[in-house]
Amino acid sequence: LKNPILVPELRDLLHKKKVGILKSFLEDGHPKETAEYIALLDPDEIWRIINLVDKDLRIEIFSYLDMDVQVEMVSGTRKKNITELLMGMNHDDRADLFLNLEKDMVDRLLVLLPLSERADVIKLTSYKEHTAGAIMTTDYATLYENDVVEKAIAKIRREAPSKETIYYIYVVNDEGKLIGFVSLRKLIISRPKKKIGDIMKRDVKFAYTSNDREVVARIIEEYDLLALPIVDEDEKLAGIVTYDDAMDILKEEQTEDLEKLMAISGGVENKAYLDISFITHFRKRAFWVIVLGLVGILTAFIIEFFSSAIEALIVLTFYMPLLNAAGGNTGSQSATVVLRALTLNELVFKDIFKVIKKEFFVSLFLSFCLGTIVFSRVILLTDSSSIPEQFTLMSIAFVISLSLALQVLWATIFGAVIPMIATKLKVDPAVVSSPLLATCVDMGGVVIYFSVARLVLGI
Amino acid sequence: LKNPILVPELRDLLHKKKVGILKSFLEDGHPKETAEYIALLDPDEIWRIINLVDKDLRIEIFSYLDMDVQVEMVSGTRKKNITELLMGMNHDDRADLFLNLEKDMVDRLLVLLPLSERADVIKLTSYKEHTAGAIMTTDYATLYENDVVEKAIAKIRREAPSKETIYYIYVVNDEGKLIGFVSLRKLIISRPKKKIGDIMKRDVKFAYTSNDREVVARIIEEYDLLALPIVDEDEKLAGIVTYDDAMDILKEEQTEDLEKLMAISGGVENKAYLDISFITHFRKRAFWVIVLGLVGILTAFIIEFFSSAIEALIVLTFYMPLLNAAGGNTGSQSATVVLRALTLNELVFKDIFKVIKKEFFVSLFLSFCLGTIVFSRVILLTDSSSIPEQFTLMSIAFVISLSLALQVLWATIFGAVIPMIATKLKVDPAVVSSPLLATCVDMGGVVIYFSVARLVLGI
Repeated sequence: LKNPILVPELRDLLHKKKVGILKSFLEDGHPKETAEYIALLDPDEIWRIINLVDKDLRIEIFSYLDMDVQVEMVSGTRKKNITELLMGMNHDDRADLFLNLEKDMVDRLLVLLPLSERADVIKLTSYKEHTAGAIMTTDYATLYENDVVEKAIAKIRREAPSKETIYYIYVVNDEGKLIGFVSLRKLIISRPKKKIGDIMKRDVKFAYTSNDREVVARIIEEYDLLALPIVDEDEKLAGIVTYDDAMDILKEEQTEDLEKLMAISGGVENKAYLDISFITHFRKRAFWVIVLGLVGILTAFIIEFFSSAIEALIVLTFYMPLLNAAGGNTGSQSATVVLRALTLNELVFKDIFKVIKKEFFVSLFLSFCLGTIVFSRVILLTDSSSIPEQFTLMSIAFVISLSLALQVLWATIFGAVIPMIATKLKVDPAVVSSPLLATCVDMGGVVIYFSVARLVLGI
Repeated sequence: LKNPILVPELRDLLHKKKVGILKSFLEDGHPKETAEYIALLDPDEIWRIINLVDKDLRIEIFSYLDMDVQVEMVSGTRKKNITELLMGMNHDDRADLFLNLEKDMVDRLLVLLPLSERADVIKLTSYKEHTAGAIMTTDYATLYENDVVEKAIAKIRREAPSKETIYYIYVVNDEGKLIGFVSLRKLIISRPKKKIGDIMKRDVKFAYTSNDREVVARIIEEYDLLALPIVDEDEKLAGIVTYDDAMDILKEEQTEDLEKLMAISGGVENKAYLDISFITHFRKRAFWVIVLGLVGILTAFIIEFFSSAIEALIVLTFYMPLLNAAGGNTGSQSATVVLRALTLNELVFKDIFKVIKKEFFVSLFLSFCLGTIVFSRVILLTDSSSIPEQFTLMSIAFVISLSLALQVLWATIFGAVIPMIATKLKVDPAVVSSPLLATCVDMGGVVIYFSVARLVLGI
């Protein structure tokens, strides 16, 4: 829509005091984009720029700045600016900022806030990471059952600037317990003299402060909500989580699942690929690569154990990668669909036998297809002069295709069952990564292969 | 929160004409849950149940029913019910329903609608699948620049029941072009005599009807929007996409990406895991399993080509699975992080050399770790009596660990580069699935392994 004004230009405009141009640049743009453009300036320059616009926009731009820039900015400024800023920020963003400050900075800033706001910061920063409490905000709008519509609207109008959302309004009783909810839409189309108790919806979806944040995000997604109320252990309304935070959570969880699935460990970095140092990339990947390397060494022992079979029949080694790949592929497939179904709450542990039954039939068909292909390949394209006399091509083809079929069967069912068991044991099923699975399946595959060969061919 | 009343009970209540109980069951529950409970009844029974409640709730429950139930319900009913329903449905949901009806049913239902609504259905069903046009809805609220706040609020109140959202209101000029937007929050806190032109935001994010739906969803996610306006090629406002649809799209795209990544083909089924027949599961997985099986047969040819090296030194085969697994794992890891960065628009094609540089260093470190482990394993734990006299254990350990290091290096860089090239060629990078990658990397690995062995050991 417009060209970004770049850092040197911004600096130049600031130096030449071109207040009008800077002001309209800030006012016309989306605060998120503005924050991206100015983030590379010095903290002092950023302050000078955002001080040009009115308080609301200033706070919005500030909230979109990266956390490290925010921390730098509040760590070196005079009191006036900072109090206004801390008072105006969304309560969840503010709590995040405090969580990222040094201890002494926290103390210095807390005293700038009035008592009630101070308590709010302390409360919101006290919840365990990744819980609903840790992501919720406390600047929501409430009404009482006996409030009358026209007065309620007047109240909401007054409070609107300080609330994160006014489109969903929660109804509480005298003890602060959540008893209903009303949307702004419902409010403005209702007759002015009606009571809130008569127009509110009593069956409200909610979550507890101790619930996992992903649970909260999934409820918001499932019921198309704008926000979900969060209550404490006494069912008292403690905060809300809005849909935009839910989207961010789902995005982060998705990256996390994907990384786990691909054997990448550690938390999700909040940085872009190129901004992450290669050492961090290395650290996140090394753990599993090394663990799987060690497991791979076990496989080497197993093959060594069967080395006489290999010596007797070199042709068997030609199909080892194919066998491993087929096991890895079919196992990853079944693990993926089951994992996805578990994530979306389509499956629970007691479905395990239904899952095994379904995967059994799927793998039977897959085994048959692959077995036929490989059988034909061995029969049609093997140089029979290379085969020791005591074996027939037919028996070798039979061994290879039977092993392949058994490997697919075992890999598919193993891949489906493991995530289900992990869920039952309350282990994150995504940790059963596709590479870990493939490596375990490899081991089983080698045992299957050479055992079948020994049994059928007597080697 | 409450126990589901199950199908037989619902049927019983219906039979005994317990209207009061049924009505309060429908009115108290969330329409989505109600739809899930009643979906298993016969179409006629569903009609009888939902006809107990008022129009708005009835339409909402209907819209939450699975598409096949909706189709069944409208395909066998009298005209009165259906016209009211079609007039009241959200325009995007209605268009979806029409897309799923038989041709003659479409014609029969279209004539029940007034001309303008008929045109709306025809227009909305004409957009190409997966475009913004195909997912947008046309029941949005608009205002003109010269409207005055108090009159605008009155207008929005009047129109609220028929609009999908009234929280974001779009401002158009006389030609219908999008020129700004105002939130309901801004509207209700503005002074009653102000003009919309003075309070609206002119820098509106938007997308075109021809844009991909994922682009739309990403903009909504990125800018925390409640809705995104969609314009046609003349920049005229044509519809909006709301955040809840964006969440559904992101969820579906995520499943699709994950399935592609794991070599599962075909579109994402809108059914739960257990509801999908095993034949469908098989069809979705068979394609890639068979393709990869055929590629695996190529690998068998390559190994056959090197069979003299194997005959000379059986110990080499012990480490084949380890080499393959290490290549597959590190390649999948780099492909995953690059793919994720591409999906989130953190990378573009011209970053390819930066990516290669970063991956080179990451893989150098990984190679070193794995190489050292395997070198030690071979030196320390190999029964040297099993090794032919002409080779030293040291040289064999050197061959195996060097091959492993080279394999990791090649797999990591290959895994990172392929998705970037796919993007450049406008091929979906997720199609370069982890199994396909692993299989290609396997082939390269076998060539590396035996070539190094030949060069170093002269076999």
